[in-house]
Amino acid sequence: MHVTIVGVGLIGGSVARDLRRTGFATRLTGVGSTPARTETALRLGLVDDVAALEEAVPGSDLVILAIPVDRIVSLLPRVLDGVERQTVIDMGSTKQAIVEAVRHHPRRPRFVATHPMAGTEHSGPAAAIDRLFAGKIGVLCDQADSAPDALACAEALYASLEMRLVRMDAVTHDLHAAYVSHLSHVVSYALALATLAKEQDERAIFSLAGGGFASTARLAKSSAAMWTPVFQQNRAAVLDAIDAFRQQLDALRDAIDRGDAEAMGRLIESANRIRRILP
Amino acid sequence: MHVTIVGVGLIGGSVARDLRRTGFATRLTGVGSTPARTETALRLGLVDDVAALEEAVPGSDLVILAIPVDRIVSLLPRVLDGVERQTVIDMGSTKQAIVEAVRHHPRRPRFVATHPMAGTEHSGPAAAIDRLFAGKIGVLCDQADSAPDALACAEALYASLEMRLVRMDAVTHDLHAAYVSHLSHVVSYALALATLAKEQDERAIFSLAGGGFASTARLAKSSAAMWTPVFQQNRAAVLDAIDAFRQQLDALRDAIDRGDAEAMGRLIESANRIRRILP
Repeated sequence: MHVTIVGVGLIGGSVARDLRRTGFATRLTGVGSTPARTETALRLGLVDDVAALEEAVPGSDLVILAIPVDRIVSLLPRVLDGVERQTVIDMGSTKQAIVEAVRHHPRRPRFVATHPMAGTEHSGPAAAIDRLFAGKIGVLCDQADSAPDALACAEALYASLEMRLVRMDAVTHDLHAAYVSHLSHVVSYALALATLAKEQDERAIFSLAGGGFASTARLAKSSAAMWTPVFQQNRAAVLDAIDAFRQQLDALRDAIDRGDAEAMGRLIESANRIRRILP
Repeated sequence: MHVTIVGVGLIGGSVARDLRRTGFATRLTGVGSTPARTETALRLGLVDDVAALEEAVPGSDLVILAIPVDRIVSLLPRVLDGVERQTVIDMGSTKQAIVEAVRHHPRRPRFVATHPMAGTEHSGPAAAIDRLFAGKIGVLCDQADSAPDALACAEALYASLEMRLVRMDAVTHDLHAAYVSHLSHVVSYALALATLAKEQDERAIFSLAGGGFASTARLAKSSAAMWTPVFQQNRAAVLDAIDAFRQQLDALRDAIDRGDAEAMGRLIESANRIRRILP
């Protein structure tokens, strides 16, 4: 299958590695935002050739959009304009704005909205790795709006990435992702900002940073290009998640302020129930 | 050297494993809060024998306190009461309240206040592992208040754990630890509480939880027995850190609320400077 990957960064590049290794793709074409990125992707052997979007789509069987969600919203209608038999799959971290952008497009059935729940805090083609997706969750949204053969192609793609597929509507996806993905990023950014600001007064503050800090602040390395449009598109759900988080933070702060060991213990033991999710 | 370890959980048990492997300890005695814990420690071979505190101290060369910080504050004066030539070292996550508890104790020079910046979110003797401390930071506080031979013993201990020692006063330790350790725990607890509360309405919310969530919520598995007294003893610095965090969270929330991509981008890029600390 001839696969065109639009966006040869961490996600697109890692998809390319898996599709080549498994034989799912017999030819891989890369479309990139800058010559430096596509040249790196070529040099690393992630893709066989690079092309402009309009050139690449007609000869492809499958077009995968692995770019920031604002660029998916602006590009996807143009990609569908040029599509006949091809399947188009996006891998964006939001889903509602993306399905809305092509709701009334005549080629909507050729499109499948997905989200692989995998990544690292790094970006760019050099960050691409083998088996980034293996064993993790892939989300497939609004499947009734996609043609059966396009859905089958998406399912085969995710099987090749060794992901476990779950199906839900785009609204539910965005609500859930706000809590278990987008909120984690907001919190991690705020933690990094607070500690970096404190470093202005207390030079050596990071000499004590250990594994706990590394774990909670890791996502703060994630790029603005990817996350700013996620927060824009999923604004209401992200605000709701931040407010729910603040309410819990305030309850903890209040218990600490009062020196109320019993209240602290109760909150911590409630939080410990996360062991059920994270064994 | 005959080493008595008070508290045979994650930290005490892991210290025991390293001291036995390196030959630093020729005999290891365990003192535990419950028979179940000391029996597990014996069965796992972490210690050679178990004893009550008063029995264990006189025959030891080194006594290590690896128990929650509230219990260090209450036990340490009693341990020093029974000490002559022995060195006593604590490994608590706070330092000010602990050094205050023995500031005027006639045996204060026998005590060395330390904090190994290492751990996992698990607890109990079965969680003890080899080389938990290797390559990480150990903090040694208020060294002028310890006798030279007690300090030398602490330095040899930390060398045996393969930790890099940094030295600072107890006040600075607690201020820095509030930001780069204690705050991470508060934030992680609040994140777990917010997502668990949301699960009441949205059953399948955790089906989308991936590596990012696991990373930021990992510390929420940490036990109340250990963390409640840390928040009590380091109350002022922890509240200061929470308030600094909230200020950054509010700035992010405000930018998201206004849909202000430029402000979001600026904040995220500032947060990205954490890459300097976390490569």
